[in-house]
Amino acid sequence: MTNDSEGKMGFKHPKIMGNFRGHALPGTFFFIIGLWWCTKSILKYICKKQKRTCYLGSKTLFYRLEILEGITIVGMALTGMAGEQFIPGGPHLMLYDYKQGHWNQLLGWHHFTMYFFFGLLGVADILCFTISSLPVSLTKLMLSNALFVEAFIFYNHTHGREMLDIFVHQLLVLVVFLTGLVAFLEFLVRNNVLLELLRSSLILLQGSWFFQIGFVLYPPSGGPAWDLMDHENILFLTICFCWHYAVTIVIVGMNYAFITWLVKSRLKRLCSSEVGLLKNAEREQESEEEM
Amino acid sequence: MTNDSEGKMGFKHPKIMGNFRGHALPGTFFFIIGLWWCTKSILKYICKKQKRTCYLGSKTLFYRLEILEGITIVGMALTGMAGEQFIPGGPHLMLYDYKQGHWNQLLGWHHFTMYFFFGLLGVADILCFTISSLPVSLTKLMLSNALFVEAFIFYNHTHGREMLDIFVHQLLVLVVFLTGLVAFLEFLVRNNVLLELLRSSLILLQGSWFFQIGFVLYPPSGGPAWDLMDHENILFLTICFCWHYAVTIVIVGMNYAFITWLVKSRLKRLCSSEVGLLKNAEREQESEEEM
Amino acid sequence: MTNDSEGKMGFKHPKIMGNFRGHALPGTFFFIIGLWWCTKSILKYICKKQKRTCYLGSKTLFYRLEILEGITIVGMALTGMAGEQFIPGGPHLMLYDYKQGHWNQLLGWHHFTMYFFFGLLGVADILCFTISSLPVSLTKLMLSNALFVEAFIFYNHTHGREMLDIFVHQLLVLVVFLTGLVAFLEFLVRNNVLLELLRSSLILLQGSWFFQIGFVLYPPSGGPAWDLMDHENILFLTICFCWHYAVTIVIVGMNYAFITWLVKSRLKRLCSSEVGLLKNAEREQESEEEM
Amino acid sequence: MTNDSEGKMGFKHPKIMGNFRGHALPGTFFFIIGLWWCTKSILKYICKKQKRTCYLGSKTLFYRLEILEGITIVGMALTGMAGEQFIPGGPHLMLYDYKQGHWNQLLGWHHFTMYFFFGLLGVADILCFTISSLPVSLTKLMLSNALFVEAFIFYNHTHGREMLDIFVHQLLVLVVFLTGLVAFLEFLVRNNVLLELLRSSLILLQGSWFFQIGFVLYPPSGGPAWDLMDHENILFLTICFCWHYAVTIVIVGMNYAFITWLVKSRLKRLCSSEVGLLKNAEREQESEEEM
Repeated sequence: MTNDSEGKMGFKHPKIMGNFRGHALPGTFFFIIGLWWCTKSILKYICKKQKRTCYLGSKTLFYRLEILEGITIVGMALTGMAGEQFIPGGPHLMLYDYKQGHWNQLLGWHHFTMYFFFGLLGVADILCFTISSLPVSLTKLMLSNALFVEAFIFYNHTHGREMLDIFVHQLLVLVVFLTGLVAFLEFLVRNNVLLELLRSSLILLQGSWFFQIGFVLYPPSGGPAWDLMDHENILFLTICFCWHYAVTIVIVGMNYAFITWLVKSRLKRLCSSEVGLLKNAEREQESEEEM
Repeated sequence: MTNDSEGKMGFKHPKIMGNFRGHALPGTFFFIIGLWWCTKSILKYICKKQKRTCYLGSKTLFYRLEILEGITIVGMALTGMAGEQFIPGGPHLMLYDYKQGHWNQLLGWHHFTMYFFFGLLGVADILCFTISSLPVSLTKLMLSNALFVEAFIFYNHTHGREMLDIFVHQLLVLVVFLTGLVAFLEFLVRNNVLLELLRSSLILLQGSWFFQIGFVLYPPSGGPAWDLMDHENILFLTICFCWHYAVTIVIVGMNYAFITWLVKSRLKRLCSSEVGLLKNAEREQESEEEM
Repeated sequence: MTNDSEGKMGFKHPKIMGNFRGHALPGTFFFIIGLWWCTKSILKYICKKQKRTCYLGSKTLFYRLEILEGITIVGMALTGMAGEQFIPGGPHLMLYDYKQGHWNQLLGWHHFTMYFFFGLLGVADILCFTISSLPVSLTKLMLSNALFVEAFIFYNHTHGREMLDIFVHQLLVLVVFLTGLVAFLEFLVRNNVLLELLRSSLILLQGSWFFQIGFVLYPPSGGPAWDLMDHENILFLTICFCWHYAVTIVIVGMNYAFITWLVKSRLKRLCSSEVGLLKNAEREQESEEEM
Repeated sequence: MTNDSEGKMGFKHPKIMGNFRGHALPGTFFFIIGLWWCTKSILKYICKKQKRTCYLGSKTLFYRLEILEGITIVGMALTGMAGEQFIPGGPHLMLYDYKQGHWNQLLGWHHFTMYFFFGLLGVADILCFTISSLPVSLTKLMLSNALFVEAFIFYNHTHGREMLDIFVHQLLVLVVFLTGLVAFLEFLVRNNVLLELLRSSLILLQGSWFFQIGFVLYPPSGGPAWDLMDHENILFLTICFCWHYAVTIVIVGMNYAFITWLVKSRLKRLCSSEVGLLKNAEREQESEEEM
């Protein structure tokens, strides 16, 4: 596990991930998608609760948004895949280096594969909301698929690295695996808003943890990296991980409060309330269900 | 893993947890909250069974109790967090000791973080029962969250300690993780009284195990600690853990018997039985559901 | 892990388990209870399927049988607990040997604790079917509890033994843990006959595996034990475990065939078929549910 | 774990599996059965969606197909069992070699045991669809049983082999275990087409992974095997595994598209649409359920 054996085995972090920006990019991506999923779930829940048939709550809009979301994800995945391959020093679609007689930049291919499965998720998103015969829960299944594959690859990603490097990636595997589990649960138990928010907050956590990894391994200030063999750093990153999670919970909570306030106070005038008379009866029924 | 390497790495148990009282305090806290949750679940179940609309079974009272419970939990968490920080010799909110160039009392910050997540649980309790649009099962989710975070932190808490010290903490992680699983199950499967009692008994077990850890590592009699390298002690603590669990089961059972007797014999006169005529039909229906 | 270190640590198998008979006794117990549970589940299922209101299918009989079962389990557990304590050379309720300054026969106390939790299961059985307000699924919960505790204790039971000895006990832990999981699933998903039969077959497997452990470690022929350090033996016991399982599946299947034949051909005359006219309609409904 | 200790322990891969063809045969078997299950699930789903009562969607045909499937599986399992035993150099039903004093070709007996449990699955298939009183979900239970047993045996199959050999078998165990889990979920949650397709794609993955193992350990070109101690190969096989999975997803998707097109455009004329008038109402109801 020393630097020496690493050098011998020829593990080299590819250029695109091996710096702060390489971790900030997927971090930003997951943070944005997490915020968007969180907002979408809250909007859906509140609109359903308030029985408003305003434009925001209409199915057509949500379907169009889903398709747009799918296209965005496919675009992001394609960008990521192209970036991994064609940056200067990347593998350029060459898997095996016949001259040197070894595999060509496998860690870059790892990232490529992860992006590919998120691309599959985007394709499933688009297909599900354009072809009506496909079950909608396919998107949840493909999401959990993409996350499980990501966890599996990251789990086998850090052979021969330093202790702290392995630890921060193990925490990443943990959060990705948990997100996959929650997505799979959503696939089985549909329309549970809390599960959706839990998944969103875990996606947010994944995004912010990518940033943390960047800060630990490649400090953007240009200073030296953290001491990768110090046990104290592991103890600190353990709670740091929990603080990131606490922050994502607070973000989701504030988002909920903000959207509730927005829908209640601002959009009231724009919405027609067709089912006004039935409202009370239904609300009681709902509250019973929730008890 | 010897004392020498410990000293070198500078792991020092902070003052507040590093003695018998430091383990007795959270133990007492969990024991009391476990007893209270157990009592609450049994009361709810019996009142529902007996279709009594007496004051004890009314929703308003239960809602007020829940809010009170939330405030108590927040209070306890704040006390714990303040205690961890501001006892003599505590970190005093200083995370990094710039003079010495190392992290400042990370184990204290670990406990601080655990208390914080239980504080979040208390806040969720208060919000859920004051704002009607929030789903009630949020409290279960936050409880399992707090417990999973606690298990995660305790799992990374004992780097470089002695064998028996690690073992008793592993058992703690086991019981906390199981409690988190049961709370998550409750979040998915609502209104199952047995799951609630199982959770209560596991919380009681956690409380009494904190006491056991205190007795093992810091005997209150002032005598020497147990031999931390003796395998026989591990074999004993294995069954000791089971005996603690057996005792909590007996406590829950006796609590059930006591409350049933109390509700049946004493409170009969105080309650009006409005739905007397419908009672038999409904009871039959219920017993079928349970079959 | 050598014999020397074992001797030093003073691990001695107590007399009652350290021979062939000591493993044959619990094996016989689990085999009989597995056969009985299997028979009970099949009887219930067939009687329900055939809508016969004969004496065999009546609730009163089943309730009485359950109480009898509870009493039998309590009796067996008490016998086992007394046997572990008061055989010649047993611990005689003395937990700590103050003269020698070490714990007194902890492995015997391990077995004692396992028996105790099965005793709790028996008590729960009796209470559930005499007190009507208790939910019936409590028995499933206590069963999975007893099995999880058994798995936990066996997992911590083999510190410092030989490789093969550990392996056969690990397989025991595996089957006990799986049985506990299935029992817990039964607690959540009620009235699934296949889950009940799966649990019965796993209990049968546990019983026959106890016999296998006895044959491996203490051959009743008086010959020498198997070579505990031979890897080939591990490879063999792996498939031997599967063959035991195959045999239990065949036993359960033959039991099903036998009881179906018995109920159909022999007991037809003894039963009144009150609901003859409704039968066809209901059967169709059921078969739809099963599809 | 060196070659020397291997030789001493006498682990020899039996003839039938120790070459490329020995891995290609089960691979082909699983690939074909995966394709068939995938096709069957899609057909059932589309026929149900379109409310066509054409011959393809009739229950009688599906029942006959299931029985045929069962017979095929039993046939395949018997062939496999006979092949493992009676090839030249096989164990010929001799379990213990009394002359040499050691077990006789245990790895061959391992494969024999796996085939046997798939045979049990075939028998359960036949019984379930001929005897109407048996619950249909028994086949799912026996499938997950056979897969769990396969995973268990493969897990204990590679004592003392090389690193890469162990790794490719661990991935096999992973996919077999996951397939078993999905089959068990299907047993609990019935009639979920996505779960069925997920299982089919995992079975396809298992089949193609058998081929990959053959290519890695016994290259059919006759060239030397891969370097079994090279960490780079592990990194490559990690993503190779994911690519296999991506290919199976694409295969299942194309199969879905092809069958939909076939049913819609070709078989329209052959089917009577009895429930034409009720169609729209029911389709709406269904789409609601899926939301």
